[in-house]
This record gives sequence, C-alpha cells and structure tokens, in this order.
Amino acid sequence: MRNFLLTTCLGAAAVFAAGGAFANDELLKLSQDAKQWVMPTGDYANTRYSKLNQINAGNVGKLQVAWTFSTGVLRGHEGGPLIVGDVMYVHGPFPNPVFALDLKNDGKILWKYEPKQDPNVIPVMCCDTVNRGVAYGDGKIFLHQADTTLVALDAKTGKVVWSAKNGDPGKGETGTSAPMVVKDKVLIGISGGEFGVRCHVTAYDLKTGKQAWRGYSMGPDSDVLIDPVKTTELGKPVGQNSSVKTWQGDQWKIGGGCTWGWLSFDPEQNAVFYGSGNPSTWNPKQRPGDNKWSMTVWSRDADTGMAKWVYQMTPHDEWDYDGVNEMILADQNIGGANRKTLVHFDRNGLAYTLDRTNGELLVAEKYDPKVNWTSGVDMNKQSPTYGRPKVIAQYSTEQNGEDVNSKNICPAALGTKDEQPAAYSPETGLFYVPTNHVCMDYEPFKVSYTAGQPYVGATLAMYPPQGETNMGNFIAWDAKTGKIVWSNKELFSVWSGALATAGGVVFYGTLEGYLKAVDAKTGKELYKFKTPSGIIGNVTTYEHGGRQYVAILSGIGGWAGIGLAAGLTDPKAGLGAVGGYAGLRDYTSLGGQLTVFALPQ
Amino acid sequence: MRNFLLTTCLGAAAVFAAGGAFANDELLKLSQDAKQWVMPTGDYANTRYSKLNQINAGNVGKLQVAWTFSTGVLRGHEGGPLIVGDVMYVHGPFPNPVFALDLKNDGKILWKYEPKQDPNVIPVMCCDTVNRGVAYGDGKIFLHQADTTLVALDAKTGKVVWSAKNGDPGKGETGTSAPMVVKDKVLIGISGGEFGVRCHVTAYDLKTGKQAWRGYSMGPDSDVLIDPVKTTELGKPVGQNSSVKTWQGDQWKIGGGCTWGWLSFDPEQNAVFYGSGNPSTWNPKQRPGDNKWSMTVWSRDADTGMAKWVYQMTPHDEWDYDGVNEMILADQNIGGANRKTLVHFDRNGLAYTLDRTNGELLVAEKYDPKVNWTSGVDMNKQSPTYGRPKVIAQYSTEQNGEDVNSKNICPAALGTKDEQPAAYSPETGLFYVPTNHVCMDYEPFKVSYTAGQPYVGATLAMYPPQGETNMGNFIAWDAKTGKIVWSNKELFSVWSGALATAGGVVFYGTLEGYLKAVDAKTGKELYKFKTPSGIIGNVTTYEHGGRQYVAILSGIGGWAGIGLAAGLTDPKAGLGAVGGYAGLRDYTSLGGQLTVFALPQ
Repeated sequence: MRNFLLTTCLGAAAVFAAGGAFANDELLKLSQDAKQWVMPTGDYANTRYSKLNQINAGNVGKLQVAWTFSTGVLRGHEGGPLIVGDVMYVHGPFPNPVFALDLKNDGKILWKYEPKQDPNVIPVMCCDTVNRGVAYGDGKIFLHQADTTLVALDAKTGKVVWSAKNGDPGKGETGTSAPMVVKDKVLIGISGGEFGVRCHVTAYDLKTGKQAWRGYSMGPDSDVLIDPVKTTELGKPVGQNSSVKTWQGDQWKIGGGCTWGWLSFDPEQNAVFYGSGNPSTWNPKQRPGDNKWSMTVWSRDADTGMAKWVYQMTPHDEWDYDGVNEMILADQNIGGANRKTLVHFDRNGLAYTLDRTNGELLVAEKYDPKVNWTSGVDMNKQSPTYGRPKVIAQYSTEQNGEDVNSKNICPAALGTKDEQPAAYSPETGLFYVPTNHVCMDYEPFKVSYTAGQPYVGATLAMYPPQGETNMGNFIAWDAKTGKIVWSNKELFSVWSGALATAGGVVFYGTLEGYLKAVDAKTGKELYKFKTPSGIIGNVTTYEHGGRQYVAILSGIGGWAGIGLAAGLTDPKAGLGAVGGYAGLRDYTSLGGQLTVFALPQ
Repeated sequence: MRNFLLTTCLGAAAVFAAGGAFANDELLKLSQDAKQWVMPTGDYANTRYSKLNQINAGNVGKLQVAWTFSTGVLRGHEGGPLIVGDVMYVHGPFPNPVFALDLKNDGKILWKYEPKQDPNVIPVMCCDTVNRGVAYGDGKIFLHQADTTLVALDAKTGKVVWSAKNGDPGKGETGTSAPMVVKDKVLIGISGGEFGVRCHVTAYDLKTGKQAWRGYSMGPDSDVLIDPVKTTELGKPVGQNSSVKTWQGDQWKIGGGCTWGWLSFDPEQNAVFYGSGNPSTWNPKQRPGDNKWSMTVWSRDADTGMAKWVYQMTPHDEWDYDGVNEMILADQNIGGANRKTLVHFDRNGLAYTLDRTNGELLVAEKYDPKVNWTSGVDMNKQSPTYGRPKVIAQYSTEQNGEDVNSKNICPAALGTKDEQPAAYSPETGLFYVPTNHVCMDYEPFKVSYTAGQPYVGATLAMYPPQGETNMGNFIAWDAKTGKIVWSNKELFSVWSGALATAGGVVFYGTLEGYLKAVDAKTGKELYKFKTPSGIIGNVTTYEHGGRQYVAILSGIGGWAGIGLAAGLTDPKAGLGAVGGYAGLRDYTSLGGQLTVFALPQ
C-alpha cells in the first residue's frame, strides 16, 4: 500500500513539473550569462567558473577595491552575493539580513529584509551562526533562515511572498545552507547533525511554498524516497529497507545525515546531487552498523525526489567525516573515455570521481598526503568490500573504544575540506580546492539523547600535522588521475570558496582576511589584499557597465573561526576544540563586510 | 583660607611640572613629524593639517584602498587612529577595544586591549556608545573608557600600567572624549550633560595616574579653578564666585557644562583650551541666570588648571547649543595685525575668532546663513551686553515658555557643527568645516532630577531648513572676516572630522559612507570612495615606508546616526528625534572598519 501511494504521488508530481519549465529555462539562461551570478554556486554544475576574462593573469596584480558594504552583523559570513541584472543581493549570518543593493548607484540599499527570529536558535547552531546564501528564481529571493523558515521575497521589493517552516529549532534543526531553485521548485537541506535530528532535502513549490517532496537521509524507503529496485549503489539495486536495516532498532530516527552542503543539478539527467552528513553522535560504539544513508553521495530525480543512485563513502563514521561537501558536475576524460563525471572532495580526505549518470566509482584518492585513517578505497569490483575505505586500525576510534583518546588522526573532524566549495576550470581541466591541513585527537564517550540538546559524544583536539605549522593548503587537483598538480601552503585552513575564471586566474580568501589571486596553471600568487576581517565567504565575479568585478564577504567565524566568533577565551573550548586556530586573533577581528574589486579605470 | 590653600597647591604643582618637561618635548617633537599622527587632534593646535604632499590635488583621483581592518564592534566610530613609529593604534566604541597594528605587516595585531565594563553604562550614554580616541605619551597609550576609567597601557605590550576613575556612571557620568597628553600630565574631560552631572577637566600624572588638578565648569572659585582677579572675561576680571552667583540656589551642583570636546594646547602660553557644554536640563525656565560657566571657551594654565580667561558664548542656553566644539589655535591677520588667534565653530551656529592670549573677541559670524535664533553677537565694546548674542524673541524657547513648541529654530540642538572637528590649512588660510544644516522644533517641559536618570526636559524634532533637502554642508571659512569662501552641499550632516594637507587637498567623510577629497582652494570634488559603513570618524594621514596613507574609521552612529546605531524603528524616537536622518538606512548599515588609502605603487 505504501508503495502504491508513493507511485501515485510521483505521477502527480511529474505532471505538475511540466508547468514549471519556464522558471528553469529562465534561470538556466541567466546562469549561463557570465555577467551575472544568479545562484550561490555560480552555475547548476557548481563549477564556480566564470567566462569573464577582463581581469586576467597579466593584470590582476593591479586590482583595486571599487566599493565596500557592511552587513551590520558580526560573526562568520559564509557564502557570497548574487548578482541579478543591476541588483546585488547580500546576505548575512543570524539574524539573516538580506540587502538588495543598486549596482548603478554605488550599492545604495534598494531594500533590506531582516526576519524576526527567536535568538534561542543560536545555541543550537553547532558551528557559528552562519548562512550560506540566498537563491534567485521566478522574480523571488529565497532565504533559509537560521530558524529553518524558508522565505520567498519579492526580488524587487523585499516583501514576503510566502514562507514555509522546514524544521524545528526546538529539536536542534537549523537553517544554514543555501537553497537551489530547480525548475518549478526550490530545494533546501537542513542542519543539526550534532543534535540527533534526522535530516532531509525538501522541495517546495516556487510559487506557493507548498512542500512538493522530502527525501530523508535514513529511514524506511518511503521516507528516503528510495526504490529498492531502481535505486542503485555501485551499479546494484540497494534492495528493500537498505537504510533501516543498517541501524540498531530505532536509531535511524535520530540518525543525522544532514544536508547543509551545496546542491547541484544536471538538467540533462534531471538529477540533483548532494552529500549527506555524519550519522549523528560522534561515538561510533553507540550506533552499530553502516548507518545508511549517512555519509552518502546522492543523485535524486529533481521532480520527484526519488533516489537514482547513492554511494556511501564512509560507512559507520568514526571521525565526524560529514559527507556534505558539494558535487562538482564536470565531465572528465577517464582512461581515454569522455565521462559525465561528478567530482567530490570529501571531509574524509578522499577526492572521488564518479560517473554521475550511474554512480560508478572511477577515482578515489587522497587529496592531502597526510590523510592516515585509511589506506584508500577498495577499488576491486570483485571484492566484497568494493568501494569501501580500508580503515587503519590505529586510527579507528571504534576499535580503540570509548574513553580512549585516539591520537594524530588525519584529517581532523572538520575534514581535509569542509563546506568551502572548490572551483573547476574547463580550460586547465583542474579543480581548485581550499583545504584544511589539520589532524586530531579523538575520544568518544557515551552520550544520551535528549531532543534539542547536543548529542555529540566525543571530545577532540585539532592541530597541524606533526612537524608542520601550516594548517591549510590551496591545491590544484587532477580528478582524472587523482593527483595534486600544485599546492600552496596557507597558515590557516582555507575556509573560503574558490573562483576560477577564463582570465587564467583563481581567487580564494584566507582566514587572516586576504583575498588572493593565483595563476591557474602554476599557483603563483599574483595579488593579495587584506580585507577588514577573516574570509570564510566564497569569491564571486560579475560584469556591470562593461567592467568586471570580483566580490568577497569578510567576517571571521564558522567552525575554524568559532573561537573568535563566539568569543571563546579558552582555546580548548567549543565544539571540536579549535585550539589550532587560536593564533587567528593576531591577524583579524570580527566583521561583516563585502569588498568589491575591479581594475583601475 | 580657601584661597591660601589653593595658592599652596598651585606652587606644588608648578614644581612638579618641571620634572615632566621631557614628556612634553618628546611628544611635541613627534607631533611635528608629519609622517606620524601622535595625537587624536593631529597636533596640539588642533589644525588637523598635514605637511605631507605625496597625495595632492593632481593625483588624489587615483587613490586606492591599501588595506582594511575591522574593529569587531558595531555602532558609531568617532575619532581616528594614532600612528606612532611603525604602529597604528585603533580604538572602538563600547566596549572600547584598542588594537596595536603592525604597519610593517599589513596591520597584523601586535596586541589588543579590551576592558571589562559594566554594560549598564550604555543606557546613560546620551548619543551612542562612541569613543573619540586614545592618546599617546611617555610610551603609554591612554584610553578613556565608557565607564570613565582612564587607563594607561604600555604602548609596546598593551598591559595596564595604571588606571584612574574619572567619574561615576551611576550618576550618568561617562567617558567618550579623547585624552590629551600635556607635559607630565594627561588631561581628560567627561560626558553626561543630559544626566545633570557637573562636568570638569581633570589632569592626571602621566606616570602614576594620580590626580594633579580638576577644574569644574561651575561652582565655587576653588572648584572651578578661577582667580577672581586674574581670570578674565573679555578683558575684565570675572570677580568672586562668578559661577555660583549665576545659578539659582544649588542648581550649579547639577549644572552640566560637560567637557567631551577636543582639547588644544599652546606651549608658548602654557595654556590648554576647550569648550564647556550645556547647563544640564534643556528646559531653560528651570534654571534662571546665565548658568556660568556653561557654554564657555576656556583657557587654563596647563600646570595648575587655573583659568586664564573665559568667554561664555551662549549665556542661559535655551537650545542645547552645547559649547564643547574644539578650539583651533591658528594665528590670523585681523585688520592688518598678526594675532595669536583661536577659532571656534560653535554649536550655536556662530564661528568665533578670539585672541587666545587674552580672550579678546575679534570676529563672531554665522557660518550657516540659515542660523536664525540670533541676529549676531553684540560687538560694541561699550555696550552692557558686549559679547552676548542678540536673541530673536520668536526663537527664544524661554520666552515662548514651557510646553510650547517653538518651530523652525536653526540650527537644531546638534548645532551647525557638533564634535566633528574642522581643519585649518596655513597655505590657503582657510578653515574646512563639516557642518549640519538642520533646524528644529523645541518644546521644553518641567523635569525633576534623579541621579543617574535622564534630565533632559525638552522634546524636539529635527529636519532640513524649510524648502531644502540637504542636511549638511562642507564649507571653507575665512576666520579673518567671518565669511564662507565655498560650500559643498551634502545630503546628510557631515559628521566626520576634516583633514587638510600640503597637497592642496581636504578630506572628509559622509554619513552615507563616502570618503571624499576636495580641492582646498575651490571645493571641487576630486575623489570619492564608498567605505563599508557611514563615516563619523576623522580623517588621518601618515607616511610609512616612503608612502603616504590616508586612514578613516567607518561605523555609522553618533547622534545623527543613533537611529540606525541603536536600531530605533520609530524615526521620532530617541534623544533629539533624529527623524531627518531616517533616510540613512537607504545608504548604509552598521559597521566598524578602518580603511587605509594610498596611491598606486
């Protein structure tokens, strides 16, 4: 009966979708106009590549600040602005103001929207009060508030068109991620993995805010929107109740698998892609089994939400290697064949190249040589453990047991990369990846679940790899072979989203506050500028009035900057004990500013 | 007996002063080095003029942002940084952080000091939580905290050397003004005129923080440090108890006369200069008499604090024309004679040129033609009202009476100019004055005094002059003749301190957030740049590594920006009903940033 209903619902959704094709066409077309930047990811493929080349490797050294804007909010500023026509939309962390700025008039404020939210949401935001950006579509701006309200604003006036409640902050569910508009729907994930919530991606109708579909990361097939036969993993049907049977009892109900990373969309496949996060508590002993489908790459049908294929990267997580990082849809030539690939840099330190049409695993290699918890992924298709990472016993926090401090595990819980999105240049064929170069001590302990209370179950300390002082690298990656092409050391994690351009330049920000431009081929530093505060935002470019601009949000915070952002004076305090970043206080201070650069006129 | 004791004390002070000559020599020398900016006023004379000319009228259009820094605090950022050697000292509003930034290393933070203060001081700060800057002397940085603590920090380490309590926030006494180091002492005023405090300037020993002298604005001669015979006004001895006899009963004890403006010092005269503020309650009916020595220009002996001369500009204030604005010590040729003059742009809309050696009144003219409460100052030396402003009955809130709304009085309570300091260029012989072009309705009402509670006694509304839309002008003033030479309209008050340079350029900021450079001779706009937030800070220049820099603090707030800074949604709410500034929200948002400019290399 459940399957019957499901099929019926899907049919209805498919019919409904046809009527929304316009929104998709408009947005698809806008996203192909290099002069604008109409979605937080730049394009549906999440390449963060721009065809603009007015600013190039030869002249980027002359870049200067064109104008600036303060958001009026301190703490971590993730994400970046949208540019739609003559208007720039700028967002901020809690209380989540949104500004529409007039590009024809030095950023004059056309409108400002600031929701009224219960400040009690702040304590249930695990890793600063961040927000990763707004989405545009159908003449509306979509904001996912900290309190999980998804609100649609009239892009011209800032007036609320509709709002929908995506979750319950009382249970620890919060909103930090950016929505993505796909055809006639707006899709959004949810945060709260450290509070034992069960996460999902949900699609809302663009015009009304009515829920169209919701796919959970774990639970019965009907909740997860999995078809036991048609949904595959590594080419095989996942079978019935593929999720529930990998959990003990009802643990899937508090199973995490959060969905706060960046979404991607492949119009040709009509598929959305994203990763699901850690299986809630960081104490692996407490949740036996593979904990599916946490830590998983997802491909879902954009209209129905039904899972096309899944791939669990880190079964039974023992390190909080949250699998939420973005999927970059960039075709690669693998072994002489052009493949429709998806490239993903996971928190677990492995970079995956998959066939995005079917989830076939093509490449899985470490993108930081210090990664030590695994010797790599079993690539033998005949092996019963095909596709699974081989865990080194010394770094297995499960095997070491509760209340045992496992030392020098690399990467640390915040991963070789976290939410900071990488970029891809079709010209060089390289991926540009902001990375963390951080290891940890990890001690799991027994924790009990109370709704709305932290459900972490591990203490940890984070620091650079032994004998090293740099906590970050900015690397160029060849996803065809799984090799680092060049690597630039950074003092702290590079927690800023990269931008690659047709000018042969790659941009990124640093936690000290520098915006940097490097040569896409060699990594040579061509330009740097000290913005008012540390950068955890993503670099954006656009053209207006015939002039190319580069924009970046400053505002130290996020997980790496939480010590400064939340005013923790004890470097060992806070989630994940970000003591290694204590030195940040010598470089920067809280802020919330947009800096816009251009060449001299 | 009282006089005897006073004389003895003065003798002791004079002896003590000799030992402190070193500090004065060092600071005097430093202040003459155009490459540094060692006091908030730029120099002792408060000219805000720099001999640097690398940036000049011919090339200022090419100015670009060199680096930036966020203070980590929102709300109004008045004042500006100090530059001493290779270090820049940046301050912020409550909670009053002080940063020492390394100019050799892109502003890396050498140390940060942030006092622990009771946040209950915030509600007793009348006009935003501003702080106007720190002072340097004897290897120490002096900070006047919001809670009136004067703290001396080791300039190298930021460690507290000593601290002194200058007032009691429980009574409404607060610290907003910048200290000035004079010889072996550090001098500081105090705020709280709207809370019925009795204000003073106090000198503390540079090395120990021990109080050296304190001169009240009103009270017995021994409190005010007035010698009935030697202290003069307009050339005549003031006589015994010149203050107390101009008040009813004990009203002088809650008489205001606050002292939060900029101090000046003339080493040749060994005299410090400053203005005292409004006589507490804004309801003139409640305090009969001239209310001396509120609204007064003061010249005091730097060693003893004894008043050399006084000049009360606005006896018996009826409009809150707080007389605190700075005294600029710039010699002028008046009627063919070179005079050691002092120029002062008062809140009451009159610009005064006085002989600073004796307080002789040379020029008193309106510096905004819209000023209407007075027809001018009686300049007839033979007149019994010599030196007093002639009040137009229609605009006399005293004559109109309590609970009567007097309309269209110009200027408004925040004056034709407030604390935003003017600049003087010896090359052009002109004064560059940031002004408010604002009028008001004013309705006094009966108010009773309770310590620590507002003691205002008037409601008002402020708006541009009838038929006009610009609320500010930036003007060039000839203090020899009392005439405007040129005037640039600004949409809002110019609440930023000006800077004049040997490059023939004058700089100032606007409430929308623009830093502007104009031609010193003509006022022609040569450059503008939109900083992250509205500017109420003062422009500073310095040279480092052979390159001239211009620095400005952004951060909307202060009296004009209080609507935005304190998040008042009702444009008529707040002290002084700053409704005319409600439009600011279309231009800028809260911030706290330093922007440093230079020419391209």
